[in-house]
Amino acid sequence: MAERLKYGMVGGGPGAFIGAVHRAAIRLNDEADLVCGSFSTDADKRARICSELGIEEDRDYAGFEEMAKAEAAREDGIDWAVIVTPNAYHYPAAKAMLENGINVVSDKPLCIAADQGRDLKRIADEKGCLFGVTYTYTGHVMAREARQLVRNGVIGEIRMVMGEYPQDWLLDALETITEDNRPWRAVPELSGRGAAVADLGTHIENWVGYVTGLKIDKLACNLDIFGEGGVLDNNVEALVKFKGGATGMYWTSQVAIGFDNALKIRIFGDKGTIEFVQEENNYLKVSLRGKPPQVYSRGSGYLTPEASKYVRVPTGHPEGLTEAFANIYLDFAAAVRDRKAGKAVNEDDYGYPTLQQGIDGVEFFNKCVDSHEAGAAWVQVE
Amino acid sequence: MAERLKYGMVGGGPGAFIGAVHRAAIRLNDEADLVCGSFSTDADKRARICSELGIEEDRDYAGFEEMAKAEAAREDGIDWAVIVTPNAYHYPAAKAMLENGINVVSDKPLCIAADQGRDLKRIADEKGCLFGVTYTYTGHVMAREARQLVRNGVIGEIRMVMGEYPQDWLLDALETITEDNRPWRAVPELSGRGAAVADLGTHIENWVGYVTGLKIDKLACNLDIFGEGGVLDNNVEALVKFKGGATGMYWTSQVAIGFDNALKIRIFGDKGTIEFVQEENNYLKVSLRGKPPQVYSRGSGYLTPEASKYVRVPTGHPEGLTEAFANIYLDFAAAVRDRKAGKAVNEDDYGYPTLQQGIDGVEFFNKCVDSHEAGAAWVQVE
Amino acid sequence: MAERLKYGMVGGGPGAFIGAVHRAAIRLNDEADLVCGSFSTDADKRARICSELGIEEDRDYAGFEEMAKAEAAREDGIDWAVIVTPNAYHYPAAKAMLENGINVVSDKPLCIAADQGRDLKRIADEKGCLFGVTYTYTGHVMAREARQLVRNGVIGEIRMVMGEYPQDWLLDALETITEDNRPWRAVPELSGRGAAVADLGTHIENWVGYVTGLKIDKLACNLDIFGEGGVLDNNVEALVKFKGGATGMYWTSQVAIGFDNALKIRIFGDKGTIEFVQEENNYLKVSLRGKPPQVYSRGSGYLTPEASKYVRVPTGHPEGLTEAFANIYLDFAAAVRDRKAGKAVNEDDYGYPTLQQGIDGVEFFNKCVDSHEAGAAWVQVE
Amino acid sequence: MAERLKYGMVGGGPGAFIGAVHRAAIRLNDEADLVCGSFSTDADKRARICSELGIEEDRDYAGFEEMAKAEAAREDGIDWAVIVTPNAYHYPAAKAMLENGINVVSDKPLCIAADQGRDLKRIADEKGCLFGVTYTYTGHVMAREARQLVRNGVIGEIRMVMGEYPQDWLLDALETITEDNRPWRAVPELSGRGAAVADLGTHIENWVGYVTGLKIDKLACNLDIFGEGGVLDNNVEALVKFKGGATGMYWTSQVAIGFDNALKIRIFGDKGTIEFVQEENNYLKVSLRGKPPQVYSRGSGYLTPEASKYVRVPTGHPEGLTEAFANIYLDFAAAVRDRKAGKAVNEDDYGYPTLQQGIDGVEFFNKCVDSHEAGAAWVQVE
Repeated sequence: MAERLKYGMVGGGPGAFIGAVHRAAIRLNDEADLVCGSFSTDADKRARICSELGIEEDRDYAGFEEMAKAEAAREDGIDWAVIVTPNAYHYPAAKAMLENGINVVSDKPLCIAADQGRDLKRIADEKGCLFGVTYTYTGHVMAREARQLVRNGVIGEIRMVMGEYPQDWLLDALETITEDNRPWRAVPELSGRGAAVADLGTHIENWVGYVTGLKIDKLACNLDIFGEGGVLDNNVEALVKFKGGATGMYWTSQVAIGFDNALKIRIFGDKGTIEFVQEENNYLKVSLRGKPPQVYSRGSGYLTPEASKYVRVPTGHPEGLTEAFANIYLDFAAAVRDRKAGKAVNEDDYGYPTLQQGIDGVEFFNKCVDSHEAGAAWVQVE
Repeated sequence: MAERLKYGMVGGGPGAFIGAVHRAAIRLNDEADLVCGSFSTDADKRARICSELGIEEDRDYAGFEEMAKAEAAREDGIDWAVIVTPNAYHYPAAKAMLENGINVVSDKPLCIAADQGRDLKRIADEKGCLFGVTYTYTGHVMAREARQLVRNGVIGEIRMVMGEYPQDWLLDALETITEDNRPWRAVPELSGRGAAVADLGTHIENWVGYVTGLKIDKLACNLDIFGEGGVLDNNVEALVKFKGGATGMYWTSQVAIGFDNALKIRIFGDKGTIEFVQEENNYLKVSLRGKPPQVYSRGSGYLTPEASKYVRVPTGHPEGLTEAFANIYLDFAAAVRDRKAGKAVNEDDYGYPTLQQGIDGVEFFNKCVDSHEAGAAWVQVE
Repeated sequence: MAERLKYGMVGGGPGAFIGAVHRAAIRLNDEADLVCGSFSTDADKRARICSELGIEEDRDYAGFEEMAKAEAAREDGIDWAVIVTPNAYHYPAAKAMLENGINVVSDKPLCIAADQGRDLKRIADEKGCLFGVTYTYTGHVMAREARQLVRNGVIGEIRMVMGEYPQDWLLDALETITEDNRPWRAVPELSGRGAAVADLGTHIENWVGYVTGLKIDKLACNLDIFGEGGVLDNNVEALVKFKGGATGMYWTSQVAIGFDNALKIRIFGDKGTIEFVQEENNYLKVSLRGKPPQVYSRGSGYLTPEASKYVRVPTGHPEGLTEAFANIYLDFAAAVRDRKAGKAVNEDDYGYPTLQQGIDGVEFFNKCVDSHEAGAAWVQVE
Repeated sequence: MAERLKYGMVGGGPGAFIGAVHRAAIRLNDEADLVCGSFSTDADKRARICSELGIEEDRDYAGFEEMAKAEAAREDGIDWAVIVTPNAYHYPAAKAMLENGINVVSDKPLCIAADQGRDLKRIADEKGCLFGVTYTYTGHVMAREARQLVRNGVIGEIRMVMGEYPQDWLLDALETITEDNRPWRAVPELSGRGAAVADLGTHIENWVGYVTGLKIDKLACNLDIFGEGGVLDNNVEALVKFKGGATGMYWTSQVAIGFDNALKIRIFGDKGTIEFVQEENNYLKVSLRGKPPQVYSRGSGYLTPEASKYVRVPTGHPEGLTEAFANIYLDFAAAVRDRKAGKAVNEDDYGYPTLQQGIDGVEFFNKCVDSHEAGAAWVQVE
């Protein structure tokens, strides 16, 4: 059995969505355990989440500085720290870790100013630390496939890149901003000089760079602040010129009604085109010059080995399968807990498929076989 | 902190796909730990997977009978057993658990004959055990939404049900069946009297029953065995009549080229229609009489509370997000391991977005703001 | 210049939808002129439509018998008759034409009983007459492509056929049937023994036969009459077995809420699959075993010559283009008529793009070039 | 019967695609006849097409000047002239018509320079002439619906507009441009200063203006010339600011592999979003704030009256239906001609559905009814 790894977390306290996603992702891989954290500035919240997550009291740290020093000093210190604070704290938290020789995984955007990033790079190099940034959408199998197809020359020399990332789920929140009720994403001191451009725009920028290797030469950008009360952009439109002659357009918006999280990137070469739509991340559209467009499917035998190695569920089972299973277990565990607590349990009320449903299924397929054996005749089921 | 639960597994040894999915799903919920198992009939395989999964030696059981007795006898025995063996062993394994008072979650189909199922029900009732069957596709948020919409009368009285589940991923395997090389799904002794009809057909049957509450009255069914060497069906076509007057058609196939796992169910009422496509499980198409069809999106504010409670990632983040994150951590952990093992590590080779990419992103959004502040003028990036 | 052809019409009087479509289709080809007809049993209606269509008075016939005889006797008689009456009159009208040696194009279904059809065939053979049946959906370019791909062996030996044709546009009409208000499609004497099965079901049956050449060996069929007051089917579900071992399922419905005219046919072979969706008739999905699914596009260079010859607008222009053009001309002609009639005409009120819009367009593209020539700088437009 | 109108054509000689589309569109409406033209500078070509189109010799004009004068002088002169020459001749041809008091319909772009357009407007106003410009895509029913929804305030105040129009069908032609082989679209003297920006870009510009009423305030535009030998743009990227505060991005390309004619326009307001995709022009996606996105379907009862009046085929029949019918008649007329010419005719070779197919259909639906009447039992068909 391979040695299990250990990690800690900065930020990600009670109610923080992205911290929970990081933890769930690491649990999926099942090779590292969360052993410490500096989850919040509020001691009560920290205590609560440490108890929930099974973290020992002495590894519930009040701040990232303290955590960095203490973990660096331990024999059994963490293998890396995950940083999921508001953007403005990414830099000091990552710096503290690196200075103490601890590897870092930071949420994106990396920090607020590029100079901060270069500073981190200098320290990481000096200390020999590893550093990852969770631009999530490069983690999809089909993002890896796209990158490999570009590297393999399948679409030829790249000419244009069209990237867009419209959303509307923050629409109500962004339009009711008041002095007292301002999400941190809309506060320059916490978020940096940009909101949508930093939060969403960098996803386009990174995905394109990751997949194509293209470097931006120059850009022209318009930022809009729609609605009342906002001080940071919620709609971003940019023309982009890449080194080497390719051009492109990037658009991202938080006020695009009817769009959930619709990252879509199209890369046009002189031999073909690749289209990736994040909300349909099991697929990649590949069009070759003079040929009918094709839809590549995650897990299929024709994928490149570089992408195939990230396939978790075999061909034909979409991502999201695990979540569906998990929901059934959530229901079942609830029934188990209620039963243990002595409550009256009616299994039909919990949502998981019951024994009776199991019996119905067996009845069903046996009746199907009966019908078939009788020449596809009609048979009575119940 | 809520008490953590404990479970064991029957089947799901090295290389078994579905056992790994069950374990990952339970890890996602993070409220129960795998503490024992009877993973294989091969002692070496058992030892290997127990080591991988961190299971104590004394809870590595040779058989389900032994496991059932031992766990029932322990003070800290399991809260439930997961059964993920070939179909033919579901019944005896579940029976052993129930007889020892242990709750059961069984993979589908429940067993091979309906009488076996009724036997299990009798014992479960007698012993007061809980029993769940993992018909996965009822676990999707939008399956729950569909059920609630039907219950709320949104589509009125149901008239027709069209269910289909075509696949092609077993195509090659199913067409090269020889005496020596026969997947268990194609062996009647292990799989029961039906293959596709049991493995896939019951998913349609269950989803329809789960969502609509309709009971099948009678059916006429044709089974095909395409290709050479098979003895069990790989294509299933059935006409169905439900109690109360609704009718329907079910089709499932393992030889439908171009289809991965395309469970699609359409339920037609006298007021509206619901369409669920498993490969696009973040959505539900809802058409009301005389109105334009609508596409419901998982996580949106207009979902019923009954479905919303299963939403794991907030509006606008698709299922599959966690897997993408997990892939990035997989890459990062590989680099951490290599570094710990003293290997030379070039972070660009591992696949996770690097610090330099993080810096590029910060540069990007700041240049966007620079451009905007200069009247959307062109600015140089590098 | 090729000789222009002449045709007549039986049925298709004022307000009859399908007669107008036949005439428009023939005008599109611009090689035949409508010169006579027996449009209605009502002399006033006949006179009105003959005037509208520019038909000479002596070729406005009271009945098809009269028309058949008179046209057969004329030196300049018609080259064919189009029959677009209610189903029950197809047979006698076609028979009258054939007996007088006139070629026939009949709307579908051909007639009410197969014996009638065989009778027509006997006479047509005897008289040496041509006979076409307008199963429209075989006329699509991509239907021709599908047929040719099957003939070329691209999808191998056919195993299964899934055909469906759900509609809802007659829903309200079909549910308010009373003795006094019964559409002819719902009256057995006019429509024959079947409604949806004859009107829509035969489209599936014909398309499949046309494209695959398969012959039905046997079938089992369930007909439903949903709603009150109907005596003919509005929902049809059938299992089909073809000669040679292929099987299939056909479904058609007039009460499938949310579906307009959704004919969809999937043909599965042992080498590949073809999928045709009538509402997206510019495309054909072609999936080959082990390869990513492809989407063929009407007009593309890779189409077979047998299909390409039916392409009317070059690659990249969808069918429907002509209708859009025609709508603009409709608006323009309305303005011309109003102007000629001495009415005050404000061109902005008519819907066609105006001269000012033309100017705006020229301004637009010149300003684009100006901006580009200034280094993609911002330029003022108005 | 309404008076039939008369029109003439400038350009649109043998082989010219767009002239033929204009003529077919006018035939669809069946209220105007083509009576004269100046189709080509080549007298032989002119004679050929006049013969094909049935135009009298004395109305086959050598040039548009001559045509304008002669038609203006005739008692039975044309009601309008259609201009479908290369772009550079639109202006002089239109001018000649207007100066002689003849109404004009011009293909787009209107002309090469905005001053020319203003000149035409001056003359048209002076002479009281009507003038239409065939920006085709405003002719779609769903374009009219989009305009009306905006006018009705359904999507509120417009914030952003995203327009794109990628193509690849000229790709090969555009990349093999030589001095001797240069399509007129790629020659500045014939096409004007822009190619894609004029040919496709103006479609976006016009559609947006037509539907929203927004006026462009300023723009920044990048033009690319990909491939060798071109002197005019084949890829266009623009940022747009509208008067009133809305912003947008326009992209059009002739080198976007995998895209046929993919005009797509999304209009975002503060209450909702409208999305029109020209290749799926029977539909309009309408998303209202906080509601699930809806798909409007051409011909449905919920459309506005302003759009409904352009519906040609009733609910549920897609545009393209007429073309499919026309293809069947094309086949049938070919058989008629061959038969008349004394050739041996095998009807199975012509592509239209035959009498036998008609008989099969009648057999099919009667057997369906037989089966149903026998309790959905299996019945033999042949």
